[in-house]
Amino acid sequence: MNAFNFLAPKRQKKPRDNGITMVLDKGMGLHTAEDLMKICGEYVDLLKFGWGTIAIHNRQLIKEKIRMYQKYDVDPYPGGTLFEIAFRKEKLPEYFDEAEKLGFRTLEISDGSTTINPADKSKIIAEAKERGFKVISEVGKKDPAEDLKLSLKDRVNLIKMDLDAGADKVLVEARESGQNIGMFDKEGKVKVEEVNYLIKNIPVDKLIWEAPKKNQQIHFILQIGTDVNLGNITPEEITALETLRLGLRGDTIGKVGL
Amino acid sequence: MNAFNFLAPKRQKKPRDNGITMVLDKGMGLHTAEDLMKICGEYVDLLKFGWGTIAIHNRQLIKEKIRMYQKYDVDPYPGGTLFEIAFRKEKLPEYFDEAEKLGFRTLEISDGSTTINPADKSKIIAEAKERGFKVISEVGKKDPAEDLKLSLKDRVNLIKMDLDAGADKVLVEARESGQNIGMFDKEGKVKVEEVNYLIKNIPVDKLIWEAPKKNQQIHFILQIGTDVNLGNITPEEITALETLRLGLRGDTIGKVGL
Amino acid sequence: MNAFNFLAPKRQKKPRDNGITMVLDKGMGLHTAEDLMKICGEYVDLLKFGWGTIAIHNRQLIKEKIRMYQKYDVDPYPGGTLFEIAFRKEKLPEYFDEAEKLGFRTLEISDGSTTINPADKSKIIAEAKERGFKVISEVGKKDPAEDLKLSLKDRVNLIKMDLDAGADKVLVEARESGQNIGMFDKEGKVKVEEVNYLIKNIPVDKLIWEAPKKNQQIHFILQIGTDVNLGNITPEEITALETLRLGLRGDTIGKVGL
Repeated sequence: MNAFNFLAPKRQKKPRDNGITMVLDKGMGLHTAEDLMKICGEYVDLLKFGWGTIAIHNRQLIKEKIRMYQKYDVDPYPGGTLFEIAFRKEKLPEYFDEAEKLGFRTLEISDGSTTINPADKSKIIAEAKERGFKVISEVGKKDPAEDLKLSLKDRVNLIKMDLDAGADKVLVEARESGQNIGMFDKEGKVKVEEVNYLIKNIPVDKLIWEAPKKNQQIHFILQIGTDVNLGNITPEEITALETLRLGLRGDTIGKVGL
Repeated sequence: MNAFNFLAPKRQKKPRDNGITMVLDKGMGLHTAEDLMKICGEYVDLLKFGWGTIAIHNRQLIKEKIRMYQKYDVDPYPGGTLFEIAFRKEKLPEYFDEAEKLGFRTLEISDGSTTINPADKSKIIAEAKERGFKVISEVGKKDPAEDLKLSLKDRVNLIKMDLDAGADKVLVEARESGQNIGMFDKEGKVKVEEVNYLIKNIPVDKLIWEAPKKNQQIHFILQIGTDVNLGNITPEEITALETLRLGLRGDTIGKVGL
Repeated sequence: MNAFNFLAPKRQKKPRDNGITMVLDKGMGLHTAEDLMKICGEYVDLLKFGWGTIAIHNRQLIKEKIRMYQKYDVDPYPGGTLFEIAFRKEKLPEYFDEAEKLGFRTLEISDGSTTINPADKSKIIAEAKERGFKVISEVGKKDPAEDLKLSLKDRVNLIKMDLDAGADKVLVEARESGQNIGMFDKEGKVKVEEVNYLIKNIPVDKLIWEAPKKNQQIHFILQIGTDVNLGNITPEEITALETLRLGLRGDTIGKVGL
């Protein structure tokens, strides 16, 4: 039971298909991370080990972090950039093998920093699915200049291709910063028309919006609803995001219809 | 004894009535928080569990956090937004009861996100005091548009009403961000004339200035003094703030008269 | 062995004379800091206890933190501001003694907040060296108005004097913020011409660039190379910086020539 139990509405418990929160771990210590999961792990569905970070961390320690997160019903997965590095080095079989050995159940297939032919990306997604992984794909470019070249129609087509290939969810890229990329302008404000175009053309429960900034989280919760899927949440904001979803913070109090 | 003991001036020890530091905990893990208190707990007087965060945390764990903080002579209390939610749900008696059972000794009575008749607010402050709680009230609105409607005269009158009703201290609202609210402009700079007006009309030891940004902390320390009451300090800035107060950082070195 | 070992290039191991990472600890708890060192301590060469922070921390706890860091082959040292306070109070002999007793092997000699005659600074550097300390000096002023008065030629001359006096490395001041100071403009962008001037006149392996912001780190890595010396890195960015150095993050992938 929670403190002041009578004051908070309840959301659907994990595992759930929407209202997902994906957290970005860029190298937390094992015990610090577990201490955090003890207090707010129930609000985390997915956890991304950011970009190539785990390739410089001790293998045994990473196995322990993976098991620890899974104990709290949090599904950890390696960042898409790590997949892209394996792709560039033509080491995809080794990549899948190592991911399996480490205990990962989910992989991200992205092309944010690398040019991958869309047909090839589809094949890789299908292969990862065949190997038994849950697949999260990502659409968007990490370089703002490259990202701006993607029209909305391009984005929708790429998302549809990934979903057709078997991706379980598609991330809308925003990086750690949430500025000048994808759905966000240079100051991190939401480009509402772009969001509208995407949700008109793609089932919204298939999308995870990377939304590291509070104003972005509030926007998506108020526009799409409490059960919007949000990603790239910093570890220290896990509880804060959940209170926004539940109307327990000034910004959404009385506005979320729970 | 401290390291390099001969280099640092000493402030009055806790419990103290001014020079108070109030920290904002938005969901730290228990052991991480205790590890921090071990190194800098002596510089923390009050600790706010931000807005409605504890209503989504395990009751037993929150009891342990409360006891842990009290062990370090830190006085934790639930955020004013939680009180406001109880007020909106007409659950004030249950709110006071639960706060008592959990072990809280201090409560915040605010109307930052909710309209509460000033006379009602006074009654509630008095009731909390009767029940044996220390009361910190807050003046200011969380919505910047609403907050701007409060004239300086309004603010002073509201603060005086809260003090007359029995509030031990009054928080000057600035939220977690410290921007575009209360005493701070859109960039977080201090509105000096507004601060001057407040301190001309209210005994300054009765006010706690929410001042999450370093430039704001420096301003208050240099204008009002080492023993100014400051709030909404992030946990990782506890030591940093104390060094500003003591002239142990470049910004205040040789300027604080200790 | 690391996870996905076959995907990451290797850098020279510690102890090393370049490619140094200096981290800023502004008051972390002992166990939290050790938990972090377990996962990424091998990427940290130097660790600065920021400004005067340790003068308000328990002496025994600081001794334990020093030993803990040294166990991970991380060399901790007290911030230059603490030295400057000792200088102002005419307590330099006591300062050296206490540093030795606490277990420090490295000291920072700076004049960022205090006016010290350059010849005096040289003498103090030489004295610290004679006492057996490794010395890191710092050039630059913490007050932006004062800092702007330093011409590039001044900076180069001061750096050369410190090196001549025996300093092992010289820090290029940027404070915790990395804005409006030294090599960075008000928004934290790199002043490339100033950097160029410095590296034309000083052996680059003698300099440690304080570069707290990601854009700054990327700039130095791409301009000077993977093995550039960088400082004032926040603890949570240790892993992230190392991935930038190694081309394991979108910003440097395929660009670092490893």
